[in-house]
Amino acid sequence: MQNLTRAQRAQLAMVLEVSAFPKPGNVDRCHDFPTTRLEHFLASAIMAGPALEAAERGGRGLGSLIHEAVALTGGYSGGNTHFGAFILLMPLVAGDGIEGAMRLIGETTVEDSIEFYRAFGKTSVRVIPGHELDVNDPSSLQEIRDRGMTLYDLMLYSAPRDMVAREWVSGFQMTRRGADLLHAAGCGREGIVQAFLSLLALEPDTFIVKKHGSEVAGMTMRRAREVLEGVRDLQEFDQECIQKGINPGSIADIIIASIYTALGEGWEWDC
Amino acid sequence: MQNLTRAQRAQLAMVLEVSAFPKPGNVDRCHDFPTTRLEHFLASAIMAGPALEAAERGGRGLGSLIHEAVALTGGYSGGNTHFGAFILLMPLVAGDGIEGAMRLIGETTVEDSIEFYRAFGKTSVRVIPGHELDVNDPSSLQEIRDRGMTLYDLMLYSAPRDMVAREWVSGFQMTRRGADLLHAAGCGREGIVQAFLSLLALEPDTFIVKKHGSEVAGMTMRRAREVLEGVRDLQEFDQECIQKGINPGSIADIIIASIYTALGEGWEWDC
Repeated sequence: MQNLTRAQRAQLAMVLEVSAFPKPGNVDRCHDFPTTRLEHFLASAIMAGPALEAAERGGRGLGSLIHEAVALTGGYSGGNTHFGAFILLMPLVAGDGIEGAMRLIGETTVEDSIEFYRAFGKTSVRVIPGHELDVNDPSSLQEIRDRGMTLYDLMLYSAPRDMVAREWVSGFQMTRRGADLLHAAGCGREGIVQAFLSLLALEPDTFIVKKHGSEVAGMTMRRAREVLEGVRDLQEFDQECIQKGINPGSIADIIIASIYTALGEGWEWDC
Repeated sequence: MQNLTRAQRAQLAMVLEVSAFPKPGNVDRCHDFPTTRLEHFLASAIMAGPALEAAERGGRGLGSLIHEAVALTGGYSGGNTHFGAFILLMPLVAGDGIEGAMRLIGETTVEDSIEFYRAFGKTSVRVIPGHELDVNDPSSLQEIRDRGMTLYDLMLYSAPRDMVAREWVSGFQMTRRGADLLHAAGCGREGIVQAFLSLLALEPDTFIVKKHGSEVAGMTMRRAREVLEGVRDLQEFDQECIQKGINPGSIADIIIASIYTALGEGWEWDC
């Protein structure tokens, strides 16, 4: 493979993830949602370029980088398709890997939190019921300042309910696991589907939990395991997820980070 | 839409073209070729970024820009998916539109021809039987120098047999036509399919001529017209093309240039 910049590698990870199919319940090359289509994901990967390049150059806070990526990619109807992916990619690109990412995460400031909340306000991301810090409430920003919460603190706060935030706290455990699964599965898009299913079978997707509750998320997890065990048909599982509106969006975000990581370790997308 | 750089607009045009479907006979989101798949086109659009950015910055020859794009995107099995598109996009991006492109084309030198031939040598693009200037023959390079052929001269030489080269000579007539068709068809991917079919009905695709002869190209043109007239089914036409290995690759290249042009004039990819 050609030598790619880290920003390009992140863009490649985004387009490979959305092209892989079938990915149960998610947008893939053969399935759109009514308002979010394949081309929204592809356009988002291209539009985020300048923010990813800024991350690679260094010297910018993670909150500001995430904010820039969201601002660059939010101006169309399918908006904010990659919000979770940006939360993971920005530290990985800026830190050039998991170790560097964790160092940068440890150095985040209150200013990063403020920037992140501003980004969050630009998305249509589901607000968690009963969430103490309401993104639409300006007093939340004051509270972040008063409490001196860094972006790491915010993610720690969200980690129990959000597996993307959990990656920041756990040292990218699932991202790492996904990258290992890609290496084990071998090159090409079949590997991506395999890794996606394996992560889906491993932990309940918190995006599904927020939308449908933990029972549905647990059932989705068990079905993914059955597909891996060969006792359930993948296409049928995909259809069922689509019909019920079950889309494992957080696992998809993590898989993007896994692809980014694996590509940097020599995993071949093309075979 | 967000303000995009011209390089990003070119990348967006490439991913939108390949995502639109059904495009009779070509790779689209629901159809791969055995060795060239959707992700090859998507990866190529991302990998070409630095060459497109160089074109936008200016000061580089068109031959060298095309060479760089080919070199950046050739390192995988589906290779050179966008060779024809780069020939059109580089002057359009560097010249910021058709008028500027024609000015730059008029200023090309022998050095541009040499660079172009080097790029050509890195592709697996079909060599025209009986073509006087054989890209694999080093004496061709000498001949270019001896004759003082600029890249414009080379394109003029190829224009009768190659509709992409013809764009350089005709002032991007089909590109312009395709952009007008996009504006007329309205926003989104349905417009791309419509514009693609209309160009296909307008002139025989020279890529098909080279591969299958002019009779097959003429028949493909007539079938496209029948689809537009509503007397032939689009899906059925697509299937027939796929079965016979008829892929209108040059029209696809021109449509990319048309999308690039139309986007710059306010055409909305998202609706």
